[in-house]
Amino acid sequence: MRATIIHGPGDIRVEDRDYPVVQLATDVVVRVTASCVCGSDLWPYRGVKPTHRPSAIGHEFIGVVESTGAEVTGLREGDFVIAPFVVSCGKCPQCLNGVTVACDRLAGWGGKDDSGVRIDGGQGQVVRVPLAESTLVKVPGVDKADQALRRSLLTLSDVMATGHHAALSAQVTPNRTVVVVGDGAVGLCSVLAARRLGAERIIAMSRHADRQAIAREFGATDVVEERGDDGVAKVRELLGGVLADSVLECVGTKESMEQALHCVRPGGALGFVGVPTGGAEIPLRYLFDKNITVAGGMAPARTYIPELLADVLAGTINPGRVFDIDMPLEEVAEAYKAMDERRAIKVLLTP
Amino acid sequence: MRATIIHGPGDIRVEDRDYPVVQLATDVVVRVTASCVCGSDLWPYRGVKPTHRPSAIGHEFIGVVESTGAEVTGLREGDFVIAPFVVSCGKCPQCLNGVTVACDRLAGWGGKDDSGVRIDGGQGQVVRVPLAESTLVKVPGVDKADQALRRSLLTLSDVMATGHHAALSAQVTPNRTVVVVGDGAVGLCSVLAARRLGAERIIAMSRHADRQAIAREFGATDVVEERGDDGVAKVRELLGGVLADSVLECVGTKESMEQALHCVRPGGALGFVGVPTGGAEIPLRYLFDKNITVAGGMAPARTYIPELLADVLAGTINPGRVFDIDMPLEEVAEAYKAMDERRAIKVLLTP
Repeated sequence: MRATIIHGPGDIRVEDRDYPVVQLATDVVVRVTASCVCGSDLWPYRGVKPTHRPSAIGHEFIGVVESTGAEVTGLREGDFVIAPFVVSCGKCPQCLNGVTVACDRLAGWGGKDDSGVRIDGGQGQVVRVPLAESTLVKVPGVDKADQALRRSLLTLSDVMATGHHAALSAQVTPNRTVVVVGDGAVGLCSVLAARRLGAERIIAMSRHADRQAIAREFGATDVVEERGDDGVAKVRELLGGVLADSVLECVGTKESMEQALHCVRPGGALGFVGVPTGGAEIPLRYLFDKNITVAGGMAPARTYIPELLADVLAGTINPGRVFDIDMPLEEVAEAYKAMDERRAIKVLLTP
Repeated sequence: MRATIIHGPGDIRVEDRDYPVVQLATDVVVRVTASCVCGSDLWPYRGVKPTHRPSAIGHEFIGVVESTGAEVTGLREGDFVIAPFVVSCGKCPQCLNGVTVACDRLAGWGGKDDSGVRIDGGQGQVVRVPLAESTLVKVPGVDKADQALRRSLLTLSDVMATGHHAALSAQVTPNRTVVVVGDGAVGLCSVLAARRLGAERIIAMSRHADRQAIAREFGATDVVEERGDDGVAKVRELLGGVLADSVLECVGTKESMEQALHCVRPGGALGFVGVPTGGAEIPLRYLFDKNITVAGGMAPARTYIPELLADVLAGTINPGRVFDIDMPLEEVAEAYKAMDERRAIKVLLTP
């Protein structure tokens, strides 16, 4: 089968790999029907995060179960499934607390499971899924023809769940004002998540017309193009002289974190989901003086999928709109290039 | 009138000062019936925070209104009042959001109000109170003879309100496990606040028998004397292999912040109210990886006093227990010494 392998910065290849088979009784094997490239895949692509050896990559996919291990009873051949971006057991204290991303048996796509057995990456044709019943979410009745639905289901793997995490972390409720920093797929999904939680005033910070358009479609009431102090001043002006109750940081750089922090009103909350890079820091004294709450991290997608899924199936949210380019898996190197150069918001890959 | 003046590190004196009078129409003058020394008063006393010129000090007091400005209608001579530890207007967006400590007209005892007029310190006999109606909380029917009640009312100025802020910031609810780092008056009040919010499992980190006794009286179910990794291990052991849902940091040093952070379970919350000193920092990546929420800062005592007051008046909480030594105002230098050397938990001063 064909799978995406990262060899080093800028070096993404599609290669032949052994066809995955069930190795543990709790495994299933999934044939991938769609996967995609994540903003965080760009960190190794750009060399910000090192690649020590050629590795399978990709952590967002949907697909159909092909075979199941002996202990798997809740999934069977032909089931349509969504894979959250990490593997989790569903039984440890962390999973029971809903924090599946801190699971005692946590494993990542393209890595190894806790038995030391290799796991395939999501940007490929077929994936062995460990701890399958607690990791995957089955979706009954997905019509093969309904491409729009499938695109939205794929976002539940990561970006829509992550946007929801940003919104919850920033304590978004109907009466609170919201600023979203970052107009990538996660930033846009954060706008949608804030709207879904009832926020009526949502300011998207974006300089790209195509992304601004999706942000408005997702519920942004205002767009701010200015950055730095000018951006803060614009937010304050739009909100009648005060800063925002809830700010959602969806990038992870030092600059974006500062931008976000300075948009929060005293007593407000900052939700951050951008993987911290480049020395992003939080000055404790500033938090203390302003009584600002900071929360966030990796989204427990597995915990959030059921409630988000209900809204996707009901058609009340359509996060699949973030995919603006489709490519066949064989062109994955070009997909990374398009994302890296910001020509694409998010690329959907068909194996 | 007599008032406490700090001249520099270790140099606390009681001096004669002009008798305060109403200067602005929104002022009242309060005769202090009791005040006290705060842990944060020790920062200038120890030279950690500089004292550039001799300054009136003390920010916690209760007393009786002596005279009122022309625009004051809600307070009159003879009213018993509690003074929160800062002056606030009650009308700006920050006050309306409940964050009175970020008031647009914020002023501190011993400093100047926003008209540039000097304000007396709380550790004295008489205080001019600016923005009196929005700053002070009137308590009807306080019997002069009820000393225990008055002691508890005095804690609402700061330490009990601050303990409540720590507990709210750490998201304490009945089903969550709690660790309190710090066994000063704020730490002890944090135990009481957590218990008041319904927490049934509260671990106090303390090495002093007298403080441990009050912590238990206030609701601590366990005491941990170990610190550092041993302290974390003990907490994990007591909680059946997991760390705490809610950790309340009540000191403000680098060490206490680290202790607190490492006691929080993945997905848990850290509430911090110790004034950050000595390079206390929060590593963003750790928060991200563990999905830990951090919140806190100066407590908006003015906002919290009404609900805490109801419980003090009903006798369901008795935070006045934190005062373990009483001294006359004239001995305030000895009071600071006793606090500095940790011979006293908190000293009550009678003018």
